[in-house]
Amino acid sequence: MGRVTERRRVIRIRDGAVSTRPDTLVAEEPLEIRLGGKPLAITMRTPGDDFALAAGFLVSEGVLSSADELANIVYCAGATEDGSNTYNVVDVQLAPGVTLPDISLERNVYTTSSCGLCGKASLDAVRTTARFALRADDGMTLTPETLAALPDRLRAAQRVFDRTGGLHAAGLFTADGELLDLREDVGRHNAVDKIIGRAVQQGRLPLSDTVLMVSGRASFELAQKAVMAGIPVLAAVSAPSSLAVDLAAETGLTLVGFLRGKSMNIYAGEQRIALDGLG
Amino acid sequence: MGRVTERRRVIRIRDGAVSTRPDTLVAEEPLEIRLGGKPLAITMRTPGDDFALAAGFLVSEGVLSSADELANIVYCAGATEDGSNTYNVVDVQLAPGVTLPDISLERNVYTTSSCGLCGKASLDAVRTTARFALRADDGMTLTPETLAALPDRLRAAQRVFDRTGGLHAAGLFTADGELLDLREDVGRHNAVDKIIGRAVQQGRLPLSDTVLMVSGRASFELAQKAVMAGIPVLAAVSAPSSLAVDLAAETGLTLVGFLRGKSMNIYAGEQRIALDGLG
Repeated sequence: MGRVTERRRVIRIRDGAVSTRPDTLVAEEPLEIRLGGKPLAITMRTPGDDFALAAGFLVSEGVLSSADELANIVYCAGATEDGSNTYNVVDVQLAPGVTLPDISLERNVYTTSSCGLCGKASLDAVRTTARFALRADDGMTLTPETLAALPDRLRAAQRVFDRTGGLHAAGLFTADGELLDLREDVGRHNAVDKIIGRAVQQGRLPLSDTVLMVSGRASFELAQKAVMAGIPVLAAVSAPSSLAVDLAAETGLTLVGFLRGKSMNIYAGEQRIALDGLG
Repeated sequence: MGRVTERRRVIRIRDGAVSTRPDTLVAEEPLEIRLGGKPLAITMRTPGDDFALAAGFLVSEGVLSSADELANIVYCAGATEDGSNTYNVVDVQLAPGVTLPDISLERNVYTTSSCGLCGKASLDAVRTTARFALRADDGMTLTPETLAALPDRLRAAQRVFDRTGGLHAAGLFTADGELLDLREDVGRHNAVDKIIGRAVQQGRLPLSDTVLMVSGRASFELAQKAVMAGIPVLAAVSAPSSLAVDLAAETGLTLVGFLRGKSMNIYAGEQRIALDGLG
């Protein structure tokens, strides 16, 4: 427990100089919420307050409205193949006599990512379903200058943003920094799916030699979407989660975060970034 | 189509002066994605590029990897009771012979909100399941000064934020601006569920006379969670979506957005904000 943050090695570029140091990342792991033993929902969350998260989710879904209706909340042991407790599965037991509203799975099952029961399982699931394997030695090279130019190009291309202040953006770029496509949505994952969807409709998968740039944070879900589309580089304006970094390292995805001005952090796949000219 | 933005009336507070004007908001509506006629997922999205969104979602889920595998994508007509097309349901038909991976609903159904098939249906669903009706005449009053102080109090209380830069925060405050609870998570919806869950565990629902403050945007999902917990005021640092405003107006929720410095926008439920002393 208490895994609110995790440490990972990061390559920092600041003022043209490169350094390597440990960095503190937000922990992200899936939580499966079961109701009376039956799987109801999976959500990607920061571990901690898991029982409260499960109870609050059930309030939001209209299942629960008072402490009296709640009998017990427990972690399910034995959720992994070796029977160990991942603390990533909780079971909520309602008090006797509490009637369940009609919960149809189609309407209510709730995940912000397709994933297994624990971090390891979700990484395995992505690896096995990936149609296009990323290759660490694909020879793709990006300069830090090209990367540094992407956020401004993304913003310049966002027509809707200035009017509402409410949209996430995802941009697809060539290795030279040329904008190939831009999509916006209230949901960052939707903006990325729209990019990937247009590409598959046009027969352009895998998206080799491209960079996916997102306006916010780099979650596990976004890293997974990049991998599934064969995109070798994911760059984000803000922080990645621990699980996004782990997935990137395991699949060969280059993951860049805190891309602001000429500064950036490289969390995985640094062989695709030309660091030679830097101090 | 082309409903990327929508107009709503907003009460603006700037430099101690109040004005009312139309505002442009990001459109947010649910999209149900069906595969071969079978409901697979619901996502809250900004309308537009819906076929690409559906195709990209299926790439991310490992169902689709080339244009050859895709036979057709259509909007489903007749998704509402009166048979009209809401353009909120798409059906993806795969090419003959394309085998489906094993998609279990528990693992893959994917929504970021519990909702019906269209904006109207989701508002109805929330209204019928709400255990605690908000009352517009509950007498709760907040001053703009109290509201203006909340973002700084929320940030000051965020212990983890400074270390990672990657966490969303949700804070629960009294009408006097006293912090009752603070939760953080990689997912904003999780932070809110953790707040509500602790309250239900402690027998404190409905959360009358409280303000829920969130660090980012106010989506439909967050507004819905506030309503389900009986929280009368939702305040956000950034923009609300169109559907969040509609839900607030229909349920009696006070919705405040762009709460920055002494400025704010009031999108619904303005009777709870003391505007008398302003110009």
